[in-house]
Amino acid sequence: MFLEKIEKANDIKQISRDNYKALAEEIRQFLIEKISVTGGHLGSNLGAVELTMALHLALNLPDDKIIWDVGHQSYTHKLLSGRKDGFDGLRQFHGMSGFPKRKESDFDAFDTGHSSTSISAGLGLVMARDIKGEKNTIVSVIGDGSLTGGMAYEALNNAAKLETNFIVILNDNNMSISENVGGVSKYLNNIRTATGYLDLKEGIYNALRGTRGGDSVVKHIRRAKSTFKQLVIPGMFFEDMGITYLGPVDGHDIEGLVRVIQEAKRVKGAVMIHAITQKGRGYAPAERHPARFHGAEPFDIETGIPSHPRTVANYTDVFSTVMCKLGARDERIVAITAAMPDGTGLKRFHNRYPERFFDVGIAEEHAVTFAAGLAAGGLKPVVAVYSSFLQRAYDQIIHDVCIQNLPVIFAVDRAGLVGSDGETHQGIFDLSYLSTIPNMHICAPKNKWELSDMMKFAVELDMPIAIRYPRGEAYAGLKEYRAPIEYGKAEWIYAEGEIALLAVGSMVKTAEAVREKLKTKGYQVSLVNARFVKPIDEEAVLEAARNHELVVTLEENVAAGGYGEKVLECLNRHDMSCMYLNISIPDAYVEHGNVELLKKEIGIDVERITERILNILD
Amino acid sequence: MFLEKIEKANDIKQISRDNYKALAEEIRQFLIEKISVTGGHLGSNLGAVELTMALHLALNLPDDKIIWDVGHQSYTHKLLSGRKDGFDGLRQFHGMSGFPKRKESDFDAFDTGHSSTSISAGLGLVMARDIKGEKNTIVSVIGDGSLTGGMAYEALNNAAKLETNFIVILNDNNMSISENVGGVSKYLNNIRTATGYLDLKEGIYNALRGTRGGDSVVKHIRRAKSTFKQLVIPGMFFEDMGITYLGPVDGHDIEGLVRVIQEAKRVKGAVMIHAITQKGRGYAPAERHPARFHGAEPFDIETGIPSHPRTVANYTDVFSTVMCKLGARDERIVAITAAMPDGTGLKRFHNRYPERFFDVGIAEEHAVTFAAGLAAGGLKPVVAVYSSFLQRAYDQIIHDVCIQNLPVIFAVDRAGLVGSDGETHQGIFDLSYLSTIPNMHICAPKNKWELSDMMKFAVELDMPIAIRYPRGEAYAGLKEYRAPIEYGKAEWIYAEGEIALLAVGSMVKTAEAVREKLKTKGYQVSLVNARFVKPIDEEAVLEAARNHELVVTLEENVAAGGYGEKVLECLNRHDMSCMYLNISIPDAYVEHGNVELLKKEIGIDVERITERILNILD
Repeated sequence: MFLEKIEKANDIKQISRDNYKALAEEIRQFLIEKISVTGGHLGSNLGAVELTMALHLALNLPDDKIIWDVGHQSYTHKLLSGRKDGFDGLRQFHGMSGFPKRKESDFDAFDTGHSSTSISAGLGLVMARDIKGEKNTIVSVIGDGSLTGGMAYEALNNAAKLETNFIVILNDNNMSISENVGGVSKYLNNIRTATGYLDLKEGIYNALRGTRGGDSVVKHIRRAKSTFKQLVIPGMFFEDMGITYLGPVDGHDIEGLVRVIQEAKRVKGAVMIHAITQKGRGYAPAERHPARFHGAEPFDIETGIPSHPRTVANYTDVFSTVMCKLGARDERIVAITAAMPDGTGLKRFHNRYPERFFDVGIAEEHAVTFAAGLAAGGLKPVVAVYSSFLQRAYDQIIHDVCIQNLPVIFAVDRAGLVGSDGETHQGIFDLSYLSTIPNMHICAPKNKWELSDMMKFAVELDMPIAIRYPRGEAYAGLKEYRAPIEYGKAEWIYAEGEIALLAVGSMVKTAEAVREKLKTKGYQVSLVNARFVKPIDEEAVLEAARNHELVVTLEENVAAGGYGEKVLECLNRHDMSCMYLNISIPDAYVEHGNVELLKKEIGIDVERITERILNILD
Repeated sequence: MFLEKIEKANDIKQISRDNYKALAEEIRQFLIEKISVTGGHLGSNLGAVELTMALHLALNLPDDKIIWDVGHQSYTHKLLSGRKDGFDGLRQFHGMSGFPKRKESDFDAFDTGHSSTSISAGLGLVMARDIKGEKNTIVSVIGDGSLTGGMAYEALNNAAKLETNFIVILNDNNMSISENVGGVSKYLNNIRTATGYLDLKEGIYNALRGTRGGDSVVKHIRRAKSTFKQLVIPGMFFEDMGITYLGPVDGHDIEGLVRVIQEAKRVKGAVMIHAITQKGRGYAPAERHPARFHGAEPFDIETGIPSHPRTVANYTDVFSTVMCKLGARDERIVAITAAMPDGTGLKRFHNRYPERFFDVGIAEEHAVTFAAGLAAGGLKPVVAVYSSFLQRAYDQIIHDVCIQNLPVIFAVDRAGLVGSDGETHQGIFDLSYLSTIPNMHICAPKNKWELSDMMKFAVELDMPIAIRYPRGEAYAGLKEYRAPIEYGKAEWIYAEGEIALLAVGSMVKTAEAVREKLKTKGYQVSLVNARFVKPIDEEAVLEAARNHELVVTLEENVAAGGYGEKVLECLNRHDMSCMYLNISIPDAYVEHGNVELLKKEIGIDVERITERILNILD
């Protein structure tokens, strides 16, 4: 009823106050219905409905700017800024992104996707505004989970110096994707339950006022500004840094939020509004299982059960199982996740070996250096992390792990195209950036058994190693090919002639299909499972070059610095001349959508690869 | 006198208390004398003499472990752990490192070099200790400057949960390399001058005690533990997180420090000792100019003046000058440094355009995303940063700058071999890791004029671009070659035949010398200044391949993913067959020492390159 009136941005301002609650309810139902069909981030969006409504009411968009940290909570914002129709194509190929995108809308002020960037970006917009002499309001909305990421704190440290307005809204649901961890969480929790402070303050004041000399002490307290804050203001750490703290406030009270935002706009400096929200609010299954409904597959609204339950194990499951086995076998094995115990599959290891499991929060830099410390202390740490998030720790891998040649194992999940999360989450750089690092080793399994074998190999290696595997279903083909993993050695699956396909990890399956197609055209085709990307198996490469007319490398990674370029370098160094074709991801960001469609779009699906090979041979 | 008695680790425990001060004085004189000859980090070491002595007295080394954040303050530690003789070869090729190195000594528990890693690494050693059931003490020593780096905070957030002992010493001299910045600095400063708090506490207590009902309020305060802390304990943010805070203490009072360390060892959890120290203490020139004596060249002890004053401009100077010019021409140009206004040459820009200059602290992640925000706001930010430190922001470049194709300029100083700082500081990965990133552009100037021209080009480009240049003297040769910079175009300096040298940045000078040598052997040699590493000039590459027998690429970067591999890929893609040689840095960390010696060692000096070319031609 009210939602029908929201066709374009600022239409919400025509809704009367009495109907805010009803509109919020309609938005919730809309989101639940749409996401139940497309899948998407449910819990965080249900938690931010009122907060987003309040922002749209209190701000003058798009002149004012909202930066959504991570950005998966921006659905209500998209809805209120005229993108209601986009929800049917949410996160689908050429459809609406699940994250803010400047190229999608003028109402998206800054692209996000990874955690903890919003205060930095917001501060940049604030300084640009001031230098240009403009007057708009900049608001960064950050979750308490994102506040465990160090760069948020780097940004707060700088925001504290501001003498013009900058609003940071701490959307505090006491959760990362899973339960939130650490000292900051504890600190915020103290504030949440801060009635103790306030009572005490009243107690002291009343006691003092009623007594001789007491009034002067109260005055003294009031004068000593920073000390006064210690007494009466929760959030005094922020205050002591120089950030005005407003809160805690109820993050589901629209009118209350509008008032506090208006108040915050008057502050000459950085101001933090601490809003307490509930993840998954208004949808019982999401309230009960916030981690499960963080990023949801399509589900049945009635029960919350996935519409298409998985029947086949994915690589994360395989990793999960092997970690438990390895943990039983070797007490030195410890596991680290950066706020992803579910996503990385470490939950079972956690349940079984709680004292050897560490969830460090959204803090990849710390995760890696912490792992280096564990390894220096004689343990065998496994850091399980998504490929695109490991980019955050590039320096720590170079500087803390690999210079000292410490035996840290990186289980790099979501390597390759990830699909509906899009540009920010595609894991397409890891082979390249990890390859630059001396002492690093890199493997990729062709199927589920090989992931298991590689993990066992990694535990014995006693040097830094990354094993990268894709999102989704674990390949269960080629079961009969299970020769032991040997250091730096590739695996010949088919040794024929004419064409040699050298494939990395997930592309072995693709190469198998390409081979079938080429066979029907009458070609002899060899298939090599690279297994190692660093070091590459030079012997296998040279053998391929000697016995074939065409060598093709296949990898789900950008071309620059990837496996293919290493193979070519090896061929050149050994003065081998043969035709060579590099199948990899072109030098461009890859949008969101179904992985098969994306592969086709960028030319790395079975059809297109086969075509490209046939073109060369002609 | 007392220093003579310090021959091996723990000898300090034989010194009587009365002589601590005298020993500290001798250590200071020793450090000043040695560093005045070799160069090295002076100020931070003079500030940490007593703190290090106290640690060696209070701990049982090497069973107990000290992790030195950054590590440039570890000289006294090296001296007290039996490495006095190493100081004559400090930071020299095959000599003692200026940083902790596990391979150098059992007393170095963890290698450091970059900032803000020590708490993460220490926490790793703590957890390893606990899991193995050992009992030693782990101490991380971190400066207040390093505390502006986000990963230190990520680590504190995790340390806060500890239930076993872990000591963090905050060595607070109120300085990064330059003056410290931001809210945390302000927070610590409040503590430093905390007598106000203490007076107030006494005031309240006395007022309350003397009055009816007051006693019960005091009791109430004492019961409400966390609130009580708010009243009486500086450092309550740390306390509220769950970290015991001891301090502030005088960081130059050896016996006091020993006592507080002993006390800290009894805490079951993370404990922070806040020690106030003075950078450069005991050497007047360093006390007066802490930034200048942070990393000092050899100097005259009497005056503090460098022994070999620079007479030739280095690239940093050139950058410094061009930034001031650009700043005058275009008001949208803003400059960002991560705690390196002097080192990056931005100090002059700061002086001239204070409102367009941002020192964000040791916070490269924030620096880059902040720059992205500035660019999204319509400005033209220049991030000036050392190559090895930019590794910290790899994800932010991918995620915040390049996905949105924002016009951020990266002035990448210290790219290539840096010399005496060694492994952690060599800038040998940037061409590779930046090349992986879609929308990024990469340039490298051959000489001082070209750096200036490239900066002007960058300002007009309106897309992300990195310009990388080495430490040290700016090449002033080839002045007559100054064709305008064109997008993606290389520069032909000599066009002859037989051999084509395609050189990147600093290697143009080297290639010029190689060419001279080859000419004397009777070869025709062309020389191409690559200018662009991304995108490479394919036309120039193909022309080189068509008209020469041998194409040689030269770069001061690792081979993996560097310029040479791009050239080879281009040759292959265009089916060009010619001999090809890749001159670059091998896949290994490069130690400290004179850059010329290092180049020789790894085979990229003029002699070795010439040899390698002649070998191929034979």
